[in-house]
Amino acid sequence: MDRDPILLTPGPLTTTLRTKLAMLRDWGSWDGSFNAVTARLRAQLLDIVHGHETHTVVPLQGSGTFSVEAAVATVVPRDGHVLVLDNGAYCKRAAKLAQLMGRRTTVVTFAEDEPVAATVLDARLKEDPSVTHVVLIHCETGTGVLNPLAEVAAVCERHGKGLIVDAMSSFGALPIDAREVRFDALVAASGKCLEGVPGMGFVLLRKAVLDGCAGRSQSLAMDLHDQHQYMEKTGQWRFTPPTHVVVALAEAVAQFVEEGGQPARLARYQDNCRTLIDGMADLGFRPFLKPELQAPIIVTFHAPASPVYDFKRFYGAARTRGFILYPGKLTQVETFRVGCIGAIGRNEMRQAVSAVADTLREMGIASGAPAL
Amino acid sequence: MDRDPILLTPGPLTTTLRTKLAMLRDWGSWDGSFNAVTARLRAQLLDIVHGHETHTVVPLQGSGTFSVEAAVATVVPRDGHVLVLDNGAYCKRAAKLAQLMGRRTTVVTFAEDEPVAATVLDARLKEDPSVTHVVLIHCETGTGVLNPLAEVAAVCERHGKGLIVDAMSSFGALPIDAREVRFDALVAASGKCLEGVPGMGFVLLRKAVLDGCAGRSQSLAMDLHDQHQYMEKTGQWRFTPPTHVVVALAEAVAQFVEEGGQPARLARYQDNCRTLIDGMADLGFRPFLKPELQAPIIVTFHAPASPVYDFKRFYGAARTRGFILYPGKLTQVETFRVGCIGAIGRNEMRQAVSAVADTLREMGIASGAPAL
Repeated sequence: MDRDPILLTPGPLTTTLRTKLAMLRDWGSWDGSFNAVTARLRAQLLDIVHGHETHTVVPLQGSGTFSVEAAVATVVPRDGHVLVLDNGAYCKRAAKLAQLMGRRTTVVTFAEDEPVAATVLDARLKEDPSVTHVVLIHCETGTGVLNPLAEVAAVCERHGKGLIVDAMSSFGALPIDAREVRFDALVAASGKCLEGVPGMGFVLLRKAVLDGCAGRSQSLAMDLHDQHQYMEKTGQWRFTPPTHVVVALAEAVAQFVEEGGQPARLARYQDNCRTLIDGMADLGFRPFLKPELQAPIIVTFHAPASPVYDFKRFYGAARTRGFILYPGKLTQVETFRVGCIGAIGRNEMRQAVSAVADTLREMGIASGAPAL
Repeated sequence: MDRDPILLTPGPLTTTLRTKLAMLRDWGSWDGSFNAVTARLRAQLLDIVHGHETHTVVPLQGSGTFSVEAAVATVVPRDGHVLVLDNGAYCKRAAKLAQLMGRRTTVVTFAEDEPVAATVLDARLKEDPSVTHVVLIHCETGTGVLNPLAEVAAVCERHGKGLIVDAMSSFGALPIDAREVRFDALVAASGKCLEGVPGMGFVLLRKAVLDGCAGRSQSLAMDLHDQHQYMEKTGQWRFTPPTHVVVALAEAVAQFVEEGGQPARLARYQDNCRTLIDGMADLGFRPFLKPELQAPIIVTFHAPASPVYDFKRFYGAARTRGFILYPGKLTQVETFRVGCIGAIGRNEMRQAVSAVADTLREMGIASGAPAL
């Protein structure tokens, strides 16, 4: 049957039909009606983190990584020094893009199955006062581990350092309060927990630092200061916006608000995550992370010990049953990942577990239990 | 009535319902079915310029300008020297982004109402052999003027210089044959003459130069060499693709092929352009460009001489009648622009002229004739 599979991936994810239907219109990017969509969306994104007093939001074309790069390029001076707290693949990507654009970059590495430690950051900032900015990945999607945003922000504030947060896979689901947590830039994207379609990111920039950011970016496309100035002056995006993606996100955010905002979204994702982990445990699967470190966004499972297990076959058999899983991103341990986010609930998670059970039977795997 | 206005703008533009309906599905960006869409699309884009022997195509997230920046960043070595042939706003933008990323940049300026001259380029390249790459805008959308791609390419080839072509608003409509015209990079985007929705660009890169492009880009997001390598190896985009935009473009290209490809598209746009110019001439309007310089993409008209003319009112009154016009982009002369591209034909152009006629009557303007 030609039925769309459920995406158990951390974006693109399954969106509602209502969100997709918003894309059935064409919008003039210069027209007042589209500018109104952009303005309303920007205000609603600030609402989510209570950021109206302190921050402004700048949307950017491209994937979330484009916005991370733009945040670093715009906020960090050319002679700045970036310290990246690294416990996974997306941390390493942030370090790479900072280095490539010529910013001095120091990487402080932690184990992949542990959160980064604010105490270690504190010590490093004492040792090396040349650091100007810290980069933190809020939820490292490589494993699904939640990093301690509030603690890291407090250390940065105490040392007078700028903080850039990649909140790609947490924004809208995990609580972030700009009145309590100080950050210079916080980055997310359309196709994650807000449940829009992929194609744009956005950066919440602290107003107190934005004026100083003029001329820092060596990239025209990535210059958020320039994008912000133009948008404030004209109401328009600097270059052609992905109009359909923007209106889909606006429609997705309307549903987010109707659902009850961040607390309701978190509750649904927590329920999804629990339903998934409990169901998979019944099949013998073991999550890679300790429960207290697990964000309810994406779960990394150890691969089954069975010698007949092969991810490609496992993926294909689950897909035939209507569920798209996600490969692991760890180099040392064989794993796979299952997302808990998107326009899905307990039913879909139960059905996913049931599809995995069928898949194991088909492959002749008695248990999902890992080697150890 | 809540009916979508016709977009007489050079992208985003009016797309077919069939193209938009393709966005009613969610796709896993890692899934084989989506990789197949990407692969087929890449092959079809090469078909359009007969580029399979010589070129490869690399799609990129973001607006067309992102792809222009990526082409310059990837193709021009860090110690390269870019010469930009400038006869309008988009030429100036290309020069700005090359300069910002630190490439030595020389701008050779021409009048806005004339094409750039290959003979002038020839002389400049003789004078200054340090130039490594030439940037040409094929159709400068600031005015709508068509620049001489074949002549410029021949001069570049004779001098052994690389050529980067911004074919944003010409690709798919105007003939470009990679077997006859040598270019290192040619850039276009989803939401222009292929009549997709905005949100991605693509760059046709000459295979003979691509290997030498590793490590040139200082931007991770903009590194087309890296994007290409990853895509060849995995079939996937490096970072989250705008899945809905990609499948919409694939659907738009299928319709492009069914319509008869580039010759058919050009014929329709030429008819649109002629219908528009003839109809507007009957109302007294005069195009900014001489007929022989006018590409059938977007037409710049002089503003009417009437003292009651005001673009905002003119725009609003035409919009009420269902047509979205485009502001002028010239600083010296007051103008406005009307696009001829998108999923529209002679009917829509006639109705547009009729809406402009009504608009003039409403505003009390007897004729669209300009001051001189």
